[in-house]
Amino acid sequence: MEETRYRRGLETARKLDTEGPERLEAALKEVAPDLYRHIVEFAFGDILSRPGLDPKTREIATVSALTALGNAQPQLRFHLNAALNVGSTRAELAEVLMQMAVYAGVPAALNALYLAKEVFEERDAKGLS
Amino acid sequence: MEETRYRRGLETARKLDTEGPERLEAALKEVAPDLYRHIVEFAFGDILSRPGLDPKTREIATVSALTALGNAQPQLRFHLNAALNVGSTRAELAEVLMQMAVYAGVPAALNALYLAKEVFEERDAKGLS
Amino acid sequence: MEETRYRRGLETARKLDTEGPERLEAALKEVAPDLYRHIVEFAFGDILSRPGLDPKTREIATVSALTALGNAQPQLRFHLNAALNVGSTRAELAEVLMQMAVYAGVPAALNALYLAKEVFEERDAKGLS
Amino acid sequence: MEETRYRRGLETARKLDTEGPERLEAALKEVAPDLYRHIVEFAFGDILSRPGLDPKTREIATVSALTALGNAQPQLRFHLNAALNVGSTRAELAEVLMQMAVYAGVPAALNALYLAKEVFEERDAKGLS
Amino acid sequence: MEETRYRRGLETARKLDTEGPERLEAALKEVAPDLYRHIVEFAFGDILSRPGLDPKTREIATVSALTALGNAQPQLRFHLNAALNVGSTRAELAEVLMQMAVYAGVPAALNALYLAKEVFEERDAKGLS
Amino acid sequence: MEETRYRRGLETARKLDTEGPERLEAALKEVAPDLYRHIVEFAFGDILSRPGLDPKTREIATVSALTALGNAQPQLRFHLNAALNVGSTRAELAEVLMQMAVYAGVPAALNALYLAKEVFEERDAKGLS
Repeated sequence: MEETRYRRGLETARKLDTEGPERLEAALKEVAPDLYRHIVEFAFGDILSRPGLDPKTREIATVSALTALGNAQPQLRFHLNAALNVGSTRAELAEVLMQMAVYAGVPAALNALYLAKEVFEERDAKGLS
Repeated sequence: MEETRYRRGLETARKLDTEGPERLEAALKEVAPDLYRHIVEFAFGDILSRPGLDPKTREIATVSALTALGNAQPQLRFHLNAALNVGSTRAELAEVLMQMAVYAGVPAALNALYLAKEVFEERDAKGLS
Repeated sequence: MEETRYRRGLETARKLDTEGPERLEAALKEVAPDLYRHIVEFAFGDILSRPGLDPKTREIATVSALTALGNAQPQLRFHLNAALNVGSTRAELAEVLMQMAVYAGVPAALNALYLAKEVFEERDAKGLS
Repeated sequence: MEETRYRRGLETARKLDTEGPERLEAALKEVAPDLYRHIVEFAFGDILSRPGLDPKTREIATVSALTALGNAQPQLRFHLNAALNVGSTRAELAEVLMQMAVYAGVPAALNALYLAKEVFEERDAKGLS
Repeated sequence: MEETRYRRGLETARKLDTEGPERLEAALKEVAPDLYRHIVEFAFGDILSRPGLDPKTREIATVSALTALGNAQPQLRFHLNAALNVGSTRAELAEVLMQMAVYAGVPAALNALYLAKEVFEERDAKGLS
Repeated sequence: MEETRYRRGLETARKLDTEGPERLEAALKEVAPDLYRHIVEFAFGDILSRPGLDPKTREIATVSALTALGNAQPQLRFHLNAALNVGSTRAELAEVLMQMAVYAGVPAALNALYLAKEVFEERDAKGLS
């Protein structure tokens, strides 16, 4: 059962970023190794794998939330990439981030857009859409 | 030109909630009457009317942001209704709010779901989907 | 395995508030029934049941975080009660909340203390410590 | 020396709201009586009494911060009144709150303006400017 | 009409930072070019150009809000400079930031003051007040 | 009296970090010298020196709050060190930070854990526990 959740979570996480789970596991290995497993099982396995919403819409929800919170730059970077990996276009993401100016203020939108610019340039360098 | 922005904003706002603009205008009439017009023109006319994203996706972005911020209950109420008015289902919104437990914490998700429950009951009473 | 997590979570949750799980289940039944189970399994079963920290210290951590966030009054109410149920004293909780004035500002501390006052009065009425 | 800080703080606090200190003392009496004194001495005596900024400007800074934080309604209510008591006009406060739409988002500005509307009506009922 | 808002916004923005609009335009050119114009028209043209509050007071409101939010360092840097450019003194800004320790907590005040120190040093190097 | 508060604050602050007060004084010397003294007197002397809670519990409360706020990295770094200096173990701190995933979201917990990893490595290099 646990194994199912973990595998399902891993599969979902890898669709967002092929090497994401490995990077997360490595980053947490020394300080909180169990958290890696809990995140894969709960966040990716229980929640993000649910069939009620397509991955693209889920990523738009996450990108919006992280932009509004404004204090989760590494995660916003991950999810901007993830959103593009599951089918969003750069133009769609820019629309979402611009819209955040209305709800979370102009600074929140600008800082997310500056990060998006970096993400887009990194992807250009890798030949990614 | 201004008139175009205002009319376009009004049209977009009314698709989210037919009586929304009138209620906002009444609420701001005495304290900040000009802000009503700026919100219709900028938020609804400039941003939410842009063609790059469909209204349903825009509302999911907004609902996610307001849930994550956690301090905008009246606006979350408005946008849960708006999301349903432009075609989201209750099940989809519940998925979005559940997902916020991962990114903004369990309390943020729970408080948004408690509000959604109220919104759904109010809509039941009015015979709305 | 899942069953183990659920039962462990339920046991941990009931130590914090005997009727807490039932109330949560009822509150989520109509809008997001699965989330109830995920919260019991992940929050209470995976995290709060971990042996590395005693329940009293865990509640102090939670009360501090919720006070600092400032937008999770229902959850702060639950955890002020939970902290007292697992052995904190009212005086200790007041110390924690006062301390938040330094880190999250005077308003955050005051609003949490006003809520604590209500919680203490409710417990007086029930003859609880 | 302490006595000086307390008296200076009390004097500054009373200029903002004649009965403010008494209300605060009463509210904290049972849960955190010492915090009352620390707030009068530190917040009002050490900081708000400093000569480097006039009371009106200080209140505008506070009102802006509380509006942006969005989770301190009782304190925003106090400081909207305080701002008017030390010489701000309602129109000036409305300008400040409108401006917050740019920096903290439209919901933060709207919720502060709805509160300002209540404050203004309460003051009308008391014949205050 | 649009042209009037844009020109008025540009004029107001340039009083805060002569090269500010050009830098913003360049930063957004590739990711969200329209947002540049919306910010000039709405934030600077509609709101910050309103006659009801002098530019110095407006900047104090903005600096306070950004300090309290704590997640908008680039914008706080801009507005600390802008405040000085429209007539605030460094001592006044330090008063405002110190005051934020009361309302948003000591960390928020400290981080804003560390940034202010950098801004002041950069201005020293340029021979600016 | 003031002198008592200052000395008591200094003593408490030095238990958390021997050189902490000197570093804070130096950092604020040019921008807000008085704030250094107010922080020592109020934060460390009035609040953190209170006998009602042991230093280890106080640091856990602070670390939790700063993790939840998510925008106070320099202060979280200080208090992770302080917590270890007054007797917490790295494992206990990791538990606290993991727990924040539940209340403040996975990103807040991850970013605090990434910082903790850096702090632990710095302490390894200095031969500290």
